[in-house]
Amino acid sequence: MSNQVKSVGVIGLGSMGMGAAKSCINAGLDVFGIDLNSTALEELSLAGAKDVSSNPLDFAKQLDSVLILVVNAKQVNAVLFDSGLAEALNPHTAVMVSATISADDAKQIEAKLQQHQLIMLDAPVSGGAAKAATGDMTIMASGSALAFEMLKPVLDATAAKVYNIGEQIGLGATVKIIHQLLAGVHIAVGAEAMALAARANIPLDLMYDVVTNAAGNSWMFENRMQHVVDGDYSPKSMVDIFVKDLNLVADTAKELQFPLPLSSTALNMFISASNAGFGKEDDSAVIKIFDGIDLPGVSKDQSKK
Amino acid sequence: MSNQVKSVGVIGLGSMGMGAAKSCINAGLDVFGIDLNSTALEELSLAGAKDVSSNPLDFAKQLDSVLILVVNAKQVNAVLFDSGLAEALNPHTAVMVSATISADDAKQIEAKLQQHQLIMLDAPVSGGAAKAATGDMTIMASGSALAFEMLKPVLDATAAKVYNIGEQIGLGATVKIIHQLLAGVHIAVGAEAMALAARANIPLDLMYDVVTNAAGNSWMFENRMQHVVDGDYSPKSMVDIFVKDLNLVADTAKELQFPLPLSSTALNMFISASNAGFGKEDDSAVIKIFDGIDLPGVSKDQSKK
Repeated sequence: MSNQVKSVGVIGLGSMGMGAAKSCINAGLDVFGIDLNSTALEELSLAGAKDVSSNPLDFAKQLDSVLILVVNAKQVNAVLFDSGLAEALNPHTAVMVSATISADDAKQIEAKLQQHQLIMLDAPVSGGAAKAATGDMTIMASGSALAFEMLKPVLDATAAKVYNIGEQIGLGATVKIIHQLLAGVHIAVGAEAMALAARANIPLDLMYDVVTNAAGNSWMFENRMQHVVDGDYSPKSMVDIFVKDLNLVADTAKELQFPLPLSSTALNMFISASNAGFGKEDDSAVIKIFDGIDLPGVSKDQSKK
Repeated sequence: MSNQVKSVGVIGLGSMGMGAAKSCINAGLDVFGIDLNSTALEELSLAGAKDVSSNPLDFAKQLDSVLILVVNAKQVNAVLFDSGLAEALNPHTAVMVSATISADDAKQIEAKLQQHQLIMLDAPVSGGAAKAATGDMTIMASGSALAFEMLKPVLDATAAKVYNIGEQIGLGATVKIIHQLLAGVHIAVGAEAMALAARANIPLDLMYDVVTNAAGNSWMFENRMQHVVDGDYSPKSMVDIFVKDLNLVADTAKELQFPLPLSSTALNMFISASNAGFGKEDDSAVIKIFDGIDLPGVSKDQSKK
């Protein structure tokens, strides 16, 4: 008899969670939606969810699995433990934790889940809202063979690519954090390069065109520096997200006693941007920490808040 | 009557210069090759060069244009001025300077060329040996409309893409330097991320696979971190090249009075790698500055030289 789950409760219906939940519905799973936002619940209900609620205890006994797509470890702990959900779930329910959290947090969450005989997959995701919507996320997961087997229908429904990093909880979290190290530094150095171009009176659209057609390109440069060229800092992903993620990188460095000269510098740049009032703007607004330059769409008066 | 050149003397027949010279031959230009390496001269002669020599004065009067693809500003000055070439060239010969040099050096070279009524194009290149060989380099150039017009046959023969940055000599150099800022930091942060993965016992081939399939990727990560996974540090481009190029970035920052937190950190990493004995290894060997990790193909004894 297969251990594969037939139902999943998706907790956190933001852009990633909503896309993942709909992908599970499309794959024929019984999907239960949990969020505090009633508009999101209504959207998922119309899309064919079995049930939706702001309180996961309403249908805890009907869940074979739980997929958690909230923002940080504090929220994971709140939805799993403060809410009473872990206690209410049937023993041997599979819990897929897909928030970006530290390896240490992942291990502590595993220990608490084990007290309720729950099975954890440490499974951070990447790919953004667009890939979540089409069921094409990248998932970097660690956990037992049983966890992978039980959650296979959820992984198949939501991901184009699933990496099995190993058995140990925390490895998935660490791979995601190292990925974010690169993403964060690439945004910050893209900003540094474009700021220098502005200082040297190089037209920014031309600088962008050169870099994106040459070996200096990165995925983040191409995606985020377009916002600088356009002078559009409406948030796709916020400066404060990288303050959080690069702090997770710093926590990892401390835990492993390892020097990270570039990441620590990039963290300081995002912290400076947040403290200057740009925390809720697009992460490309880290370029606004540089003074003495003119940027498209940024007036001198508004540049510091 | 067209001002376009019919002949070109290519000075510096390394991997880039050789590719560019052969592309010019294929495009029907009269090509003269200049290098100290007799093997390179022989290779270009067999490929159809009009003439080759270690001394450019041998055929200076036959050249409508000169393409300089040497390593740095010191070599540009040596081949143009110390050799007597600038004096020997016919007035109004077009000189395309494609070494990676500072804007300041470019302006000083322009001033000296003007004393001999020579016309300069500030035209650094990107793309590596492979693109040079197929005539598909990226050229980021600045100079007068006349310089662009005269050199059009050489630009068409060697480049897939030519950016006209503006009239002022130095702008081409600056765009190239900002491009190298990104390239250098991307290599250094790739090394930092892979070193942290090694410290956390993440298999490096798996980490490489995750990053290259996700938003943390860069052109340099994908190209250079493969060398780390393979443990192959035979030089495609050397650590010392990025010591040179990131020092040009630092010179530019000083000239423009502009802070570059990430580039200055990356420069220190490449300097440390060079001082530890890895200057002539592949630039991905910057990862060897990190202690307390095991890397493929790097024995503990050999890691520091």
